[in-house]
Amino acid sequence: MTETIGKVFGDITVSADGYSAGLDQTEERPFGADGGDGTGSKLHAWMFDHADENRAEIDLILDAGAFIMGRNMFGPVRGEWDRPWNGWWGEDPPFHAPAFVLTHHARDPEQMKGGTTYHFVTDGIEAALAEARAAAGARDVAILGGATTLNQYLAAGLVDELRLHIAPFTLGAGTRVLAGVPPLQLEQVSSRAATAITHLTYRVR
Amino acid sequence: MTETIGKVFGDITVSADGYSAGLDQTEERPFGADGGDGTGSKLHAWMFDHADENRAEIDLILDAGAFIMGRNMFGPVRGEWDRPWNGWWGEDPPFHAPAFVLTHHARDPEQMKGGTTYHFVTDGIEAALAEARAAAGARDVAILGGATTLNQYLAAGLVDELRLHIAPFTLGAGTRVLAGVPPLQLEQVSSRAATAITHLTYRVR
Ligand SMILES: NC(=O)c1ccc[n+]([C@@H]2O[C@H](COP(=O)([O-])OP(=O)(O)OC[C@H]3O[C@@H](n4cnc5c(N)ncnc54)[C@H](OP(=O)(O)O)[C@@H]3O)[C@@H](O)[C@H]2O)c1
Ligand SMILES: NC(=O)c1ccc[n+]([C@@H]2O[C@H](COP(=O)([O-])OP(=O)(O)OC[C@H]3O[C@@H](n4cnc5c(N)ncnc54)[C@H](OP(=O)(O)O)[C@@H]3O)[C@@H](O)[C@H]2O)c1
Repeated sequence: MTETIGKVFGDITVSADGYSAGLDQTEERPFGADGGDGTGSKLHAWMFDHADENRAEIDLILDAGAFIMGRNMFGPVRGEWDRPWNGWWGEDPPFHAPAFVLTHHARDPEQMKGGTTYHFVTDGIEAALAEARAAAGARDVAILGGATTLNQYLAAGLVDELRLHIAPFTLGAGTRVLAGVPPLQLEQVSSRAATAITHLTYRVR
Repeated sequence: MTETIGKVFGDITVSADGYSAGLDQTEERPFGADGGDGTGSKLHAWMFDHADENRAEIDLILDAGAFIMGRNMFGPVRGEWDRPWNGWWGEDPPFHAPAFVLTHHARDPEQMKGGTTYHFVTDGIEAALAEARAAAGARDVAILGGATTLNQYLAAGLVDELRLHIAPFTLGAGTRVLAGVPPLQLEQVSSRAATAITHLTYRVR
């Protein structure tokens, strides 16, 4: 009997110098000094302004059976969960699957509409991955970021595939994908150009 | 009367995390801890092992009318020029044009075969560029690296076009292209995948 198990992929949009967010994140500017309005809209123009052209890349993210993200990607609340916050994605988030939020601050799960439930994991990256794998079954697990979260998984050798969407500007500072991660062997699985974006997919060996 | 003047382009091969050379450069390992044998052969596999497939990208570099490089790219001699050294490229270098080497240590020009003359420029990046432009005439000026040199030109706003060749591995440390360079607006002019490499060309705006 062969068991099919999904892969673990990281998927993140970076500036040409490798940053996935700028310095000085605030609630009004969750991406900080991101070269635009602070909401990441410039980094993510490929997703929002050119969605049709990039449908395949977007679908590949949302096809995952479970999601992992860091607490700073989830929202602007820091420290204790001292006020209501259920993510940036509204009542019916696009995940339609369990999403595991890494944090040091315990919190009960939040069940949203459409199949998304946010689970708050306080016992580290391996625990979050084990829960995500169990939830995803044969489907993939998506690590969505930010860089602080993805880099930990990369450094621990827990990522099978790394997808970078390289946007045409530089930030000069911020949280950098792959920063502090020991050398990795990669295999370029695909590389596709679209309007003002390059999609690179690597198998991590 | 319109005057045609060439553009200034930077052209450099980087790891997926943006490094153009590793730590600990030595004469035996001029690229230092570069994930391979220290000669940059792994970064530059696209040039040497897959030259036919990448002929267009290679020719675009060599079409320049003048070249600029840093002293560490030119060779392993540091401090005073206390022993003979005429570059890594033998008696008949592939440049076939003047090549300006930035250094703090004055030295007379070296005329090589085939049209390459090495000029050693001790009065900074703008002086080197002025000399290179004068030598190139209507042709382009190529800034070849290393990162220390290219980043200075990028930071000074003197680069019209940035060509990155992204190799499928990470280094984790070394000299990083775009490190310390203030934010840049780029236009993705072309993006092409070949075997185990992605060629990205940006116009710097
Ligand atoms: N460009 C993109 O595609 C992209 C993708 C995702 C996010 N982003 C942006 O990136 C920024 C967030 O990224 P980031 O790197 O700053 O942070 P992040 O990875 O989203 O979150 C980091 C936080 O998560 C918690 N955490 C991470 N690892 C943990 C662990 N092992 N154990 C327990 N808790 C852990 C900690 O929060 P506590 O200690 O406070 O609980 C930590 O401060 C935001 O601006 C976001 O919008 C961009
Ligand atoms: N991946 C690629 O495509 C690629 C391309 C090129 C090079 N490389 C590699 O990158 C490494 C070299 O790069 P690097 O960044 O270490 O050094 P580099 O830019 O080649 O050379 C730096 C040196 O050039 C001189 N210099 C630079 N700017 C100057 C200025 N404004 N005024 C006067 N002198 C100046 C200084 O030498 P002094 O003060 O000693 O005179 C400085 O230490 C080598 O391993 C090389 O093989 C890789």
